[in-house]
Amino acid sequence: MNIVFHGANAQTFMPRFEILLEQDHQISFVPDQIESSEHIATYQAADIVIGIRYDAGLPKLSAQLYQLPSAGYDKVDLNMLPANCAAANVFGHEKAIAEYVMMALLSRHVPLFEADQQLRERNWYYWAGKPTGLRTELGSETIGIIGHGHIGKEIAKRAQAFGMRVMMANRSPVDVQYDKTFGLTDLAKMASEVDILVNCLPLAPATESLINAKIFSAMKASGVFVNVGRGAVADEQDLFIALQNKHIGAAIIDTWYRYPSPDNAIPNPSVLPFAELDNVLMTPHMSGWTEGTIARRQQQMADNINRLARGEAILNSLK
Amino acid sequence: MNIVFHGANAQTFMPRFEILLEQDHQISFVPDQIESSEHIATYQAADIVIGIRYDAGLPKLSAQLYQLPSAGYDKVDLNMLPANCAAANVFGHEKAIAEYVMMALLSRHVPLFEADQQLRERNWYYWAGKPTGLRTELGSETIGIIGHGHIGKEIAKRAQAFGMRVMMANRSPVDVQYDKTFGLTDLAKMASEVDILVNCLPLAPATESLINAKIFSAMKASGVFVNVGRGAVADEQDLFIALQNKHIGAAIIDTWYRYPSPDNAIPNPSVLPFAELDNVLMTPHMSGWTEGTIARRQQQMADNINRLARGEAILNSLK
Repeated sequence: MNIVFHGANAQTFMPRFEILLEQDHQISFVPDQIESSEHIATYQAADIVIGIRYDAGLPKLSAQLYQLPSAGYDKVDLNMLPANCAAANVFGHEKAIAEYVMMALLSRHVPLFEADQQLRERNWYYWAGKPTGLRTELGSETIGIIGHGHIGKEIAKRAQAFGMRVMMANRSPVDVQYDKTFGLTDLAKMASEVDILVNCLPLAPATESLINAKIFSAMKASGVFVNVGRGAVADEQDLFIALQNKHIGAAIIDTWYRYPSPDNAIPNPSVLPFAELDNVLMTPHMSGWTEGTIARRQQQMADNINRLARGEAILNSLK
Repeated sequence: MNIVFHGANAQTFMPRFEILLEQDHQISFVPDQIESSEHIATYQAADIVIGIRYDAGLPKLSAQLYQLPSAGYDKVDLNMLPANCAAANVFGHEKAIAEYVMMALLSRHVPLFEADQQLRERNWYYWAGKPTGLRTELGSETIGIIGHGHIGKEIAKRAQAFGMRVMMANRSPVDVQYDKTFGLTDLAKMASEVDILVNCLPLAPATESLINAKIFSAMKASGVFVNVGRGAVADEQDLFIALQNKHIGAAIIDTWYRYPSPDNAIPNPSVLPFAELDNVLMTPHMSGWTEGTIARRQQQMADNINRLARGEAILNSLK
């Protein structure tokens, strides 16, 4: 079959991809902007496309499988795909994201780099026994996780190992034991009971601005909001105002409202000046981006291609 | 009974200590240097001393209990205590130390603060999908823990939740399931198999310089050594040379060879210039020092005083 990797994101998954395939296939690459007749022909000859974007601006496909190398598929218009073309996404980023979240949360308690700089200058400020350097513990805090999917479960597992109280909010009932569970309609209630509120939800009509002024004002004034789901699940303006007016203590934001595009390679991540706030840790949608994620996703994509070649049903089907 | 807190370290545990006691007791404080006749009299009238140092330089005690507010008791000469005087230490720092260790290890994989600085300047270097910003995962590493005590167990629990391979070396057989276990005589073997080697052992004649050039040269060149036990369990010169000559990749050192004393309040933590090395993270014996540790130790010490007052055997007896 013709396997076509489309765009810079998909390209990251090409090295050594062929060794995961059971049969010989033709593997090609086309760039994000498909303009030359050669690229158009390659793209349209694809049996399998690996990409993160399919819309009316792209040449029409007659493929059998549209395989995303990512979890989010909000830029793929599933209705535009041929009727008999399957579509699937991948996960495998949840361990990486959980490491990012635990690192960000621990960094609020363990002043590691400050202590290192001090001791190099013979300053023992944080020495045990000096009341000056007493710190707090992450383990004594309560975390509320929104979304009991792959990411939420991995964060919960680590939080529990740290002795944290773990609460979970989810659309459907949760089959794992947590300190408390809530429906998504009771989000404000959970927000009022936790020290840390983490969004793991993807973007969908039902989740857009689900986390808004009502939720932020329910939170403790010391509360920390973390977004590793999708930016717009947290209302852009409400989040900015909650931080600016110190209605909440801090935010750790990895998923944003604006991203690099062909028109603007280095945008601000929001129309609002988050970078001027001192109570936000802001990172460029990096939480899931590890060698481990690449390897796990390559394996999941190759598994689907191998299943398709054997005539078996694909996994993580989106249609 | 007369309860006397001795010195600045013990003093940290005084606030609200009385509310944990079942009966009324007299609570006093004497400073580290006991020189005035009043302080000598207070110290000698103690039924219970809470302190971390007892030696020939101090007035002779006739107490019933010498209670340490710490785990290490290498500065208390147990043989000098009256024959009928019990001695006990406390733990309760293990969760704090495990948080320090996980934070230090995660910080080697998640470039959080660099990414934050960059994004504030619209630099998307670490953005998912850019091959530039791909990071590694702690969860893919193997950790070897030396000492299956309170600290070692808590580190292991968190490491397992991160999906790490966990190996354990201990003097006596280990009753918990790990990927591999070793005796202390096989330390070099474990050192050769791990990415991270963590010392949790206290200082004793049998552990002094137990981790030496032989162990460091068994480690991978990328290996990370962590010391949260006691400084001198790792040979001072061998550790420095291993780092300086890049026989190991890095070290995270919280427990040292020299500490602040009445003679020198701001010493270098070693006679060797660790601060000149760029592959060491050095902190001033802070890993266990949290509000949670204080609270847990206060409770453990009060429990022992309550037990003594009720005529029951004390816990964590050292004699």
